[in-house]
Amino acid sequence: MMRERLLGLLEESDDRFVSGELLSQRLGVSRTAVWKQVRKLEDEGYTIEASRKLGYRLAGRPEQLTLTSLLTKLRTNTFGQRVKLLGAVDSTQNAAQRLAEEGAPEGTLVVAEQQLQGRGRMGRPWISPKGKGVWMSFILRPSIPLPFTPQLTLLAAVALCRSLRRLTGLDIGIKWPNDLLIDGKKISGILLESSAEEERLKYVVAGIGISLNLDASDYPPDMLAKAVSLKLAAGRPFDRSETIAEFLNEFEELYLLYGEEGFGPIRTLWEALSVSLDKPCVLTTPQGSVIEGSPVGLADTGELLVKREDGKVVHVFSAEMGLPEGREG
Amino acid sequence: MMRERLLGLLEESDDRFVSGELLSQRLGVSRTAVWKQVRKLEDEGYTIEASRKLGYRLAGRPEQLTLTSLLTKLRTNTFGQRVKLLGAVDSTQNAAQRLAEEGAPEGTLVVAEQQLQGRGRMGRPWISPKGKGVWMSFILRPSIPLPFTPQLTLLAAVALCRSLRRLTGLDIGIKWPNDLLIDGKKISGILLESSAEEERLKYVVAGIGISLNLDASDYPPDMLAKAVSLKLAAGRPFDRSETIAEFLNEFEELYLLYGEEGFGPIRTLWEALSVSLDKPCVLTTPQGSVIEGSPVGLADTGELLVKREDGKVVHVFSAEMGLPEGREG
Repeated sequence: MMRERLLGLLEESDDRFVSGELLSQRLGVSRTAVWKQVRKLEDEGYTIEASRKLGYRLAGRPEQLTLTSLLTKLRTNTFGQRVKLLGAVDSTQNAAQRLAEEGAPEGTLVVAEQQLQGRGRMGRPWISPKGKGVWMSFILRPSIPLPFTPQLTLLAAVALCRSLRRLTGLDIGIKWPNDLLIDGKKISGILLESSAEEERLKYVVAGIGISLNLDASDYPPDMLAKAVSLKLAAGRPFDRSETIAEFLNEFEELYLLYGEEGFGPIRTLWEALSVSLDKPCVLTTPQGSVIEGSPVGLADTGELLVKREDGKVVHVFSAEMGLPEGREG
Repeated sequence: MMRERLLGLLEESDDRFVSGELLSQRLGVSRTAVWKQVRKLEDEGYTIEASRKLGYRLAGRPEQLTLTSLLTKLRTNTFGQRVKLLGAVDSTQNAAQRLAEEGAPEGTLVVAEQQLQGRGRMGRPWISPKGKGVWMSFILRPSIPLPFTPQLTLLAAVALCRSLRRLTGLDIGIKWPNDLLIDGKKISGILLESSAEEERLKYVVAGIGISLNLDASDYPPDMLAKAVSLKLAAGRPFDRSETIAEFLNEFEELYLLYGEEGFGPIRTLWEALSVSLDKPCVLTTPQGSVIEGSPVGLADTGELLVKREDGKVVHVFSAEMGLPEGREG
């Protein structure tokens, strides 16, 4: 295994440089083959400095996501206390849904190193490269009426926004209903899927994708205009265990508050973090109707209140939010 | 096969009586054994007249539920146009849910002769003996916001109540939210299970159980105080294909009306058929709180409006409805 032997040679020399010439001789392969293998290690999360004169130097190892590293940072009673750590999975959402159907309790968490078919809203694909982000789903069994379900997605957005702001120090805002943005670029995705019997929720599976340590090369070329990773935005990588724990700690606190006091406090927090309020926008509903106006806040059950140009305030349950014509881009 | 031979002998003699003595001789079994086999045929839906003097006479064959018998009676464009007829199934609800996950279109219908694990609300068992009732589930893919889902269960109750009233001529009323009653006794069950992504419904599976031709002996002894079949109430059996077609014709008509005009017309029809309005009741919510008052109508999103004794009107999303203390029974 050339990978293991190269890694061994780099680790032997601690943080000193090893020349490409020497590596090529010891491994019995061309210098180009050495360079290719170095690139592969970087893809795995190793940081390797390269110098034409000095050769290669191992400057950082990939952060490992382990059960211990996660559990020692959790201060929760419920969320994340049962964890399933997976290598590659079709989607954490599907895995958690299967667990929910089998009766797994509230708080059960599925985290994967990599998603092969990560799902976003409306079945859109979600880029989930190995080890570079937080790809997770967890189970909720809230005792709330079905019509209140949209409140949970707003709660999740508030918890994620608050925990990531604290972790990174970056100015992160919420675009309705639950996209997190830095300078207008998306850094995470939230997807709540629910199953109900009549007006009673059976379970909700909350999927969270955080573009934590993605490099520019991880994105399709045209996507960097709309998306960014926290590493690219902050100029430094972040620890996955710490990120997950920070989020779940915050989520559990808000979820308990929601259970005790209802949606009021969550609405206040959401509105404070929102970047969508009081700015003209165009909303296109799944039924195809178009609403132009400025969002002014959230209604009691969680839908968006939009003030149209004629002054009338309408309730919007579900829509794609865009900018008015001429302001796109 | 004694069953086939007995049936053959009865059919040979057309509608004349055959003596038990003769049957016993021809089949080479005791007269008690003949009588036992006659009982089994009756369980299958055969009508066999028995007379101590004359013997047995085949007076009716079980109604057969076939695709042709169903489709010729349907006037729908969508509902029931794709049908899966099953013999025995765990539950039609599970079968339809699997089809919905696989992408089956709106209107897809699953009908079973028998359910081995028929499910009612809250996971309660539902008695579904072979060939004696309508045990079916069908798929909806409505383009409505998630909070409106409870309206569909009320729509289903209205459609079922109207079609069964027309079919049977019986005075059938709706107990909130969707139980159908004759003289306070339950004749059917409706169970809507929904799957949503955020505030967007992915699909709804509507399960309908109609206690059509059950005999008193099909019920557990203590259940006849609370439940009754249409056959027992009307004194005659009903055809399953006709019942299903009548319901689906009515359902599709109301579903289209709902799509065009919203919940208004459905609410009016529901309120007109309700037996729950303006009568004192006690409502126990899943959260355990108890509301005493009189239902006065439905709210816009479908929840029940209950006027408490202090005159205040509260919204009830989900609850078990019972009688005030001292009025039970």
